[in-house]
Parts: sequence; C-alpha cells; structure tokens
Amino acid sequence: MLRAALSAGTAGRRSVFEVFTRRLPHGRRYGVVAGTGRVLDAVENFRFDADVLRFLRERDIVDEDTLDWLADYRFSGDIWGYPEGEVYFPGSPIMRVEGSFAECVLLETVILSILNHDSAIAAAASRMSSAAGDRPLIEMGARRTHELGAVAAARAAYVGGFATTSDLAAGFRYGIPTVGTSAHAFTLLHDSERDAFRAQVDALGAGTTLLVDTYDVAEAVRTAVEVAGPELGAVRIDSGDLLLVAHRVRQQLDELGATGTRIVVTSDLDEYAIASLAAAPVDAYGVGTQLVTGSGHPTASMVYKLVARAESDDPRAPLVPVAKKSSGGKTSIGGRKWAARRRDADGYAEAEVVGTGPVPGALAGDQLLAELVKGGEVVAREPLDVARDRHTAVRAALPLSATQLSRGEPVIPTEYLHGGSGS
Amino acid sequence: MLRAALSAGTAGRRSVFEVFTRRLPHGRRYGVVAGTGRVLDAVENFRFDADVLRFLRERDIVDEDTLDWLADYRFSGDIWGYPEGEVYFPGSPIMRVEGSFAECVLLETVILSILNHDSAIAAAASRMSSAAGDRPLIEMGARRTHELGAVAAARAAYVGGFATTSDLAAGFRYGIPTVGTSAHAFTLLHDSERDAFRAQVDALGAGTTLLVDTYDVAEAVRTAVEVAGPELGAVRIDSGDLLLVAHRVRQQLDELGATGTRIVVTSDLDEYAIASLAAAPVDAYGVGTQLVTGSGHPTASMVYKLVARAESDDPRAPLVPVAKKSSGGKTSIGGRKWAARRRDADGYAEAEVVGTGPVPGALAGDQLLAELVKGGEVVAREPLDVARDRHTAVRAALPLSATQLSRGEPVIPTEYLHGGSGS
Repeated sequence: MLRAALSAGTAGRRSVFEVFTRRLPHGRRYGVVAGTGRVLDAVENFRFDADVLRFLRERDIVDEDTLDWLADYRFSGDIWGYPEGEVYFPGSPIMRVEGSFAECVLLETVILSILNHDSAIAAAASRMSSAAGDRPLIEMGARRTHELGAVAAARAAYVGGFATTSDLAAGFRYGIPTVGTSAHAFTLLHDSERDAFRAQVDALGAGTTLLVDTYDVAEAVRTAVEVAGPELGAVRIDSGDLLLVAHRVRQQLDELGATGTRIVVTSDLDEYAIASLAAAPVDAYGVGTQLVTGSGHPTASMVYKLVARAESDDPRAPLVPVAKKSSGGKTSIGGRKWAARRRDADGYAEAEVVGTGPVPGALAGDQLLAELVKGGEVVAREPLDVARDRHTAVRAALPLSATQLSRGEPVIPTEYLHGGSGS
Repeated sequence: MLRAALSAGTAGRRSVFEVFTRRLPHGRRYGVVAGTGRVLDAVENFRFDADVLRFLRERDIVDEDTLDWLADYRFSGDIWGYPEGEVYFPGSPIMRVEGSFAECVLLETVILSILNHDSAIAAAASRMSSAAGDRPLIEMGARRTHELGAVAAARAAYVGGFATTSDLAAGFRYGIPTVGTSAHAFTLLHDSERDAFRAQVDALGAGTTLLVDTYDVAEAVRTAVEVAGPELGAVRIDSGDLLLVAHRVRQQLDELGATGTRIVVTSDLDEYAIASLAAAPVDAYGVGTQLVTGSGHPTASMVYKLVARAESDDPRAPLVPVAKKSSGGKTSIGGRKWAARRRDADGYAEAEVVGTGPVPGALAGDQLLAELVKGGEVVAREPLDVARDRHTAVRAALPLSATQLSRGEPVIPTEYLHGGSGS
C-alpha cells in the first residue's frame, strides 16, 4: 500500500484513522482500554533499521523510493485516544491517528496488536477483580501465553484491577508489584514435605506462602504451622474442591492458632470460580490461564479504519469523510469523531455518545478523547497506577448491572450524533 | 524457590523435569509440537544482566548468594524433546529437561510460554491446512494478538502448514515467505476505486491482488480487470457470504477473460469456514483472528513437572521418581520417560506408548524423543521447513479420523508401560 501510494502521489494526503470495535465479545457488558502506554512507546520507537531495510530490498517487497522513505520514518502526526483504563462500547472511537496516509497506515498493525491484546486481558481482569471484591488477585499466567505477551498481560491485568504478578519481568519492566510462589517441584525436590517447608521458611521467613497440596492437605497444614509457627504468612491450595478445602483448611489453621495465616487459592480460576468462592474463607486468588487468554475472548476485535482524508493532493485540501460501503456487516461510519459519556443526575453513565459534528454543550465536559501524541511527540505519559485507579473509578460509575457476570448487552447504548462536515 | 533451595543445599540435586499435557483441548484429535526452535534460542540466551540483578536486589527478591549464582547462570544440562512439527497426545513427554534443580527450574516459565503458545497456534493451523487441502493459507492475524506473539504465531502457523504470512517481521526473523495485501483504507484514500486499482497495478504490476469489496463487488471486479487486464493476479473478498460471492466473482472473471485470476477470501475464517468453502471456486484463504487465538484454544495447557531427582545431595546419588500425590485430578506419573509411536502393518499410528522402564525392542526404532541440548549446547537446530515437512508427514501417518474437524477423542490412545527404577 505504501509503495503504491507513494508512486501515485497520494501517500501524503492528510488522513484520519480510528480504532473502534463493532461489537463487544458475546455477552460482555463493557470493554476496557489497555495498552495505551505501550502504544505510545511503540509509536515513539517505530523505525526501520538497516537490517530491516536490507531485508525489504532483498525480498523486493518495496522499491528504492519506498526504502528511502522508510529509512527516514518517524511518526509526525497526532494521536488522540481514550485514556488507559477507560471503558468502551461498540463504536467508541478508542484511538484516533491523524497525519499523512503513509505515516498513519504503517502503524495499523502495531497499534491494533497492542490494543487488541492488552484490552482483551484487561477486560477479563476487570471482571475478575469485580468478582473478587476486596480480595487481592495475583497474576500467574506467564507460562500460558507467549513469553513477552505474558509481560504485557501482567501489565493489562494490573490496569484491570489485579494487585500483583508472579512475572518478575513485568515487575522489572513496568514496576508492577511482584509476589513469588513455590511449586510442587520444590516440595518434591526435598526428602520430605517438612524439609521443603523448613528450607523455604529458613530462607524467606515465616511470612512466606507454603504450598500445601502436594501430598495430604491436612498433614501439610499441620506441618506448615509446626515449621513456621502460627505467624505463617499464607498457605496455597492448588487443586481439589477449593470451596470445601478452603473451609477445612481455615478451620484447621484456626485450631492450630494460626488465625492470621491467609489462604491463597489457585487452579484454573476464572471470574465465575472467583465469584463462587465469595463466601469461602479465601484471602487471595492466583489466576493464570483464564486471565492471559481473556477468559474466553483472547482478542478485542478492534479495527483501524480510515474515516476521513484530504479531498485532493493539495496540502490545504479539506478532509472528507470516507467509509466502506459494501454489504456484509462490515460497514463503518465515516468522519472524524468525538465521544462523550452522558451521565444521569446521580453521575452514572447513561450512554456513549459518538458524533461527527460539533460537540453539544451539555456533553463538552464529558468528552472521552484525550491528546496523546502531538506533532509526533508523546504528550500524555502517566504512571500505570493512574490508569488502574481510573479504571476502578470509571467502572464504579457504570450502571450496577455492568459487573454482573452473566451474559447481557452492553451496559449502556452507543448513540450516534451526525452532523457537520465530518472533518 | 531458587533462593530457598540454594540455602538448603538442595539446589544442586540432579533433576528431571518433563513437559506434558494432561489432556488435549476439548474435542481435539491431536496436538502439534511447535516452538521447539524458539525454546533452543531462549535457553541459549537465558542470562541475568546487571539491570535485572539490580532490580532483584533492590526489591529484595533474592539474597546475595542467589544474585551471585544468577550472575553466572548458564544452562549446562540436557534437553530431549519431540521434534518440532511432531504430533502429541495426553501424557506425551513433549520435552525433558535434565540438570541441577536450580538450573532447570529457572527455565520453567520460558519453556512453557513458548510451547504452550506456539503449539496452540500450530494445532489450529494444522486443522486449517488439512481443511484447505491443496489451497494455500495466508497468515494474516498479526493485528489480533500481541505484537511479538504475532511473529511467533506466524512461525507456528507455518509449521502447521500455512504457506505464507502477511507479517513482514516474521519474514525478517524466520524467513517465512511473505505476501502483501491492500486494505479498504487504500481504496478509500483515492478519489475512486479505479484510481486506487490503477495506483496499485502501476506500482506492483498486474500480478497483484486487488481488494474488491469496498463498494460494489461486481463493479469492482469489472474495474479491476479493465485496469489490470485479464492477467490480473488475484482479487480478494473480505466480507459477505463468501460461498455465494466467490461463485459470482469466478463467473464474472471468467466472462471477462480473466480465467487465470485467482480468488483470495478472508473474513473471520476458521477451519470450519474453510471446509465449507471446499467446493467454492476459491484459490487461497487468508486467516487472522481464529488462527492466532488457536481457534478457541489459545493455550495448550502443557505443564512442566519434576518427575525424578537425586536421592540425596551426594552428586553420585541415583535418581528417584517423584510425583504429586494429592487428589484433585492433577496427579502425574513419576520417573524419566521415553515415548514411542506404535504403528500398524500399514504404517499408521496405533498408540502413543510412554514408559519409564527399558524400551521394548519392537518400539526402539519408533522413539519420539530427540536430543536437543547436550551439556548446555544446542545440538539439534534445523530449518523451519524441516519441521513443516515433518508435520505434514506425521499427520499423514495418523489414522484417517485425525483430520475430521468434529469433536472427538484423541485419535490414538496413550498407553503407559511402567517398569524399572524410573531413572
């Protein structure tokens, strides 16, 4: 596309691309924007080095003019977007990228990859964190997904409300709080469960978390408290009927005087399993597979579409809205869009309003798109905790049915206001 | 775990870890090993640099002894595994890692991440490639998954039988053949569909693939052949009832004399949609979302378990088999294993035989584990085409029902032969 647009002289036409999704995953009430910070890093660092240019030349993928253009590539346009942690609905213009066609079209794959992946994880994380209430969630899914996808997943989980991750690379890269865990292998390495517990407590102190289901849970709990004392930090249960076992273990711990010892459960948890343990004496949940695979929806189905472009090759030409018109359910709405969340008198969200004309005065203060990149410079970096806190606040302002786990429609409708030139 | 095992003096015990899966994803007939080559790269490059060591120190995650140990880390053990492209079944010992407990346990996450991700994609790719028969499949899912997960997915898809990828980074990194595609944005950028087609044909020649469903398909096909001539390479259809539209487009192309112009279809294809188009005049399929998300099963649920370890801290101590014994369906079988595929008189696979004792003579020639790393050195690198060809050959030697798309049991049973010391 780039090569052909450069030859045709259309590559420089000012263009507006928008990221949106036509639908939420089946039954989901809201989506969660995540990955915005990673998009900013990716845009800032998007370059073509000598090795890549050589590859493109040797494979005859692009011509010399295009190679020259790529060698100088640096995004110089503007990006607006929903802030990280915000929620979104079908049609929400989650991100808007403006610049020349050439500089914007090149970013399509990396922007969609990041937002589709991270938002899918954050949406699952958000459902899990609302199901868990005040109990902390530990991200433990690194081994279930691509090794670097895992680091991004831990980050997205944190945005969606997780407290910690077991992925040290995510702690290193993004500063997310990390927690450790011991595996059955550690117990099996030692000559007895008691030896294993003693080794762990000697090295890490009584505040550590001992894994108690390698052999017999009741015996392991007894041994754990004998070895660590009643100040044992926590025990972890990773198999069996967690509801039943948690009750038994709590009773046993209390009888042994370890009333402050917490119970961490893991074992293929998802938001439904977490919710079903609400009445169980569980203090924290470790979640792996279902988190990093988006709990049934591993991608967010966002698309990146050209919605407006310059009317001609004249640099001063006005923008005209454009949209695919073919049948098949893939039509979209042309024109550069604004978005606002209309609220009721109590401050609860009532509708996602998306428009192409002027913003109605009543909605001016509730606009959702923030400036992220201006003339190629990132202008809206923020700590990850800000995104995490934003998500908590925004979710709390959705109608109460938002956090029902059962399948349903998007919790607020998307309304379109058309008007103006679309530019 | 590492810190505690180092303090306890057990970190050096010779250990055997195995990667296996307790079950295939629901209804799947076989699994596909992919990512082996990436595991070898990861093991070879697994190091802790100064920045990482500083992070571990500052967060007080490990103590000074452990930091010293990590600074010198280099895997010095042995790895055996199913060759890339092989198929596997519940209980198949897909990879076996042997060395000190410490050096092996550190590799758990990276090995599982790679194998779980890549094998999930390859399994979906294999189902799609068997459904597609001789028609080539194009990997087009980069925008639907993590930006680097996408590159690994393109690689795994190739192992599973895909012909090409649209992910240039995968072409650059792994030498996979790449193909381009134009998006609706390219058509919308231009003042007319004719202008867009002309720009593309001028730059890329008549052999290019024109996207014909931005406005009206029949008109686009007419324009495409007018612009490119009857030697037009291909047209791509990305929406609508593909079966119906493909028939109409074929007829129209033939009437226009473009009898050699191929039809490429895309649009949320999966193996079922591909199979349903078997009788349609389609020449190639582009697959995105369903491929990179494993067609409903985005992870392969492989685990990495300690199955044997030295009986004591004595370096000459013999290995003893170990296994988790608790209830809850997560038990595993201790002891270092071999595996072989028993064949019938016609050469078709009959059973996956896994054992801990001596290998029966009749199976000696059909063993599945190959030496991959010896004393820390990679000894089994191979071109990706070898893995791809292996997969085609191995799949063809499964019972015919292997490639049925309907849900069923693993196409061959796994049989266990116990015996010997397990070491």
